[in-house]
Amino acid sequence: MESDIKKRSLDLHEKNTGKITVISKVRVKNSDDLSLAYSPGVAEPCLKIKDNPNDIYKYTSKGNLIAIVTDGSAVLGLGNIGPHASLPVMEGKAILFKEFADVDAFPICLDTQDPEEIINIVKKISPTFGGINLEDISAPNCVIIERRLKEELDIPVFHDDQHGTAIVTSAALINSCRLSGRKLEDLEIVLSGTGAAGSSIARLLKDMGVKKIYGYNIDGVVLKDKYDSYSFLIKELIDQSIIDFPNNLDNDSLEALMKHKDVFIGVSVKALVTKEMVSSMNKDPFIFAMANPDPEIMPDEAIEAKAFVVGTGRSDFPNQINNVLAFPGLFRGALDSKSTKITESMKLSAAKAIAYIIKDEELRRDYIIPSPFDKRVVVAVSKAVKDEVYRLKIYRK
Amino acid sequence: MESDIKKRSLDLHEKNTGKITVISKVRVKNSDDLSLAYSPGVAEPCLKIKDNPNDIYKYTSKGNLIAIVTDGSAVLGLGNIGPHASLPVMEGKAILFKEFADVDAFPICLDTQDPEEIINIVKKISPTFGGINLEDISAPNCVIIERRLKEELDIPVFHDDQHGTAIVTSAALINSCRLSGRKLEDLEIVLSGTGAAGSSIARLLKDMGVKKIYGYNIDGVVLKDKYDSYSFLIKELIDQSIIDFPNNLDNDSLEALMKHKDVFIGVSVKALVTKEMVSSMNKDPFIFAMANPDPEIMPDEAIEAKAFVVGTGRSDFPNQINNVLAFPGLFRGALDSKSTKITESMKLSAAKAIAYIIKDEELRRDYIIPSPFDKRVVVAVSKAVKDEVYRLKIYRK
Repeated sequence: MESDIKKRSLDLHEKNTGKITVISKVRVKNSDDLSLAYSPGVAEPCLKIKDNPNDIYKYTSKGNLIAIVTDGSAVLGLGNIGPHASLPVMEGKAILFKEFADVDAFPICLDTQDPEEIINIVKKISPTFGGINLEDISAPNCVIIERRLKEELDIPVFHDDQHGTAIVTSAALINSCRLSGRKLEDLEIVLSGTGAAGSSIARLLKDMGVKKIYGYNIDGVVLKDKYDSYSFLIKELIDQSIIDFPNNLDNDSLEALMKHKDVFIGVSVKALVTKEMVSSMNKDPFIFAMANPDPEIMPDEAIEAKAFVVGTGRSDFPNQINNVLAFPGLFRGALDSKSTKITESMKLSAAKAIAYIIKDEELRRDYIIPSPFDKRVVVAVSKAVKDEVYRLKIYRK
Repeated sequence: MESDIKKRSLDLHEKNTGKITVISKVRVKNSDDLSLAYSPGVAEPCLKIKDNPNDIYKYTSKGNLIAIVTDGSAVLGLGNIGPHASLPVMEGKAILFKEFADVDAFPICLDTQDPEEIINIVKKISPTFGGINLEDISAPNCVIIERRLKEELDIPVFHDDQHGTAIVTSAALINSCRLSGRKLEDLEIVLSGTGAAGSSIARLLKDMGVKKIYGYNIDGVVLKDKYDSYSFLIKELIDQSIIDFPNNLDNDSLEALMKHKDVFIGVSVKALVTKEMVSSMNKDPFIFAMANPDPEIMPDEAIEAKAFVVGTGRSDFPNQINNVLAFPGLFRGALDSKSTKITESMKLSAAKAIAYIIKDEELRRDYIIPSPFDKRVVVAVSKAVKDEVYRLKIYRK
């Protein structure tokens, strides 16, 4: 990061003393205002809600308000910096929700990293919120927490670090296929990183029709004979045939795995990809090198090695795989349709909506992903998500 | 409550879908904005806070942000309506904080009424907040929770239902003395209601110099021979000589207790005061009949019975004892002075500040309490509170 950005960011945060403020939507200038917004008038909406719990969505801000919940255990590329130091990121996420999709979002930074306690606290504070966005929680806790909350709460729960990347990566893959004329079901994909984000990517791609995904992680290529040593996340991917075992591999290196494959998707800071490895892939490979801040391979190198498209997580290169394309519209659509959950099919709808923002004739190798500031994105994503909620009939009555 | 207010309040809440919104204090219109407010620039304030925890006040909204925490167990006059139905009240409180004192406040409605769990959750969510305002929690839990949080957190904690009323009642008593030429130390006071609010009133009045306070509650007059049957709250008041035992009482009725006393303070819905009881008091008694929505005695009756001043909790009579005179300025002062707590002496300073808004020559029997919309109040209260924090040196370094 440039030192200029560092200094300007500190200045911005200090000058404004943070980034969020909680303001009133109604006027409170005289005693009549006070008697309506507060005592005694406020007793009426309270009694309505007491008699009909769903009226909370009618008379309060709950229906447009989500909690951004973190334990500070896996913040950006900074690691386990704790709940206090994570607050600037959560405030940042809150203002992105507001600016991109008019979703009210509030940071809840929890001073505990015990998953059972996090689950319990989120359940107990949930009356105020119409949705829960989990953020920057380390694996496997993030998966455990999200699954339990999805089961036990009747509002949408979404862990952005898992699924946001998955949605935008899927959109990138759809458009790479459109531009190159290939089909998803013909692709053989190398997935570097089989943690929370990698798992979610693999699941979504399989749901989309991809047939072959091979895993790579810190222990090398994911292989059947290592099964017993794997965490439950990887075991699940294997048991559910999400991850496939490669045949006839020279050894269990990333180099060996990438030979004659079509796509590289990297969501691990550990892997390094060379030009030679890209050259060893099938013709016109797609490279999504999303390690942050340093991609697994720099875009210019991948292009030199004949990559067809290259995407990274960075805004200073083309084709940025940026979660902000997904989460604002996803929650906008879920809240507007009164959805009680976020399903795989809603994520898939979101991915397709992001992809098809770009028309056939506009697609280019350096433009397979729309800009985060393209105002059509949130509209398209929220509409696609809403349509899916209506189709599934998973909305609040 | 008039049906007109009921309908207009419902309309207001429905039209705006609640009363609060969370907005951004900084601009996020292009990728440069994004790189400063979010990734990658936001890493810098995170790292600063990690290295120096107090920097959280410099780079985030924490220092101006309080949680309004309830379990929905004692909401307005509605009782135990639970956390969901309490949300309109908590949103209302939040906008009062914002409108009266520019304090950002956010409702946390907890789906538990177990005091230990509430204490634990508030501690665990505290990283986001610069202060905790407990609200509408029933006694004795509210006292237990507040005491423990005051001990265990390093940010101001305040239960408004206990102390807000106490501060404003104290201000009313100060001004009743100023106007009548009497002295606090000469007054004999009847306190009807010895729960959370009553206890706090009694403590603050004693700190202010009142010598004699007699208690009355659902079990009759507070007497030594009933000691064993009392809750720990009342036992403490007796043990610490906050509540005094009356001499030579005919019986343990409120009627008997009020004879020849100077002040009636009512914070219980159970007690009824008649004109005869007011007439039996010493000359020119002060009557603060704060039961809501129906005062222990209506102001016109008390005046007919020769009360010198009458205060109630209602906005449609003179001398409204309204907490909004206290809590906004109290938190404004505590946050501005970086106070780590709220002390008895800060409450006392707030009470005096509220009282002395009204100049000697302005005081009248129907104007011993300033209007909630008097803009001088929050300025005076916050300054008085700040001065006390500086004097006590209880601020964050």
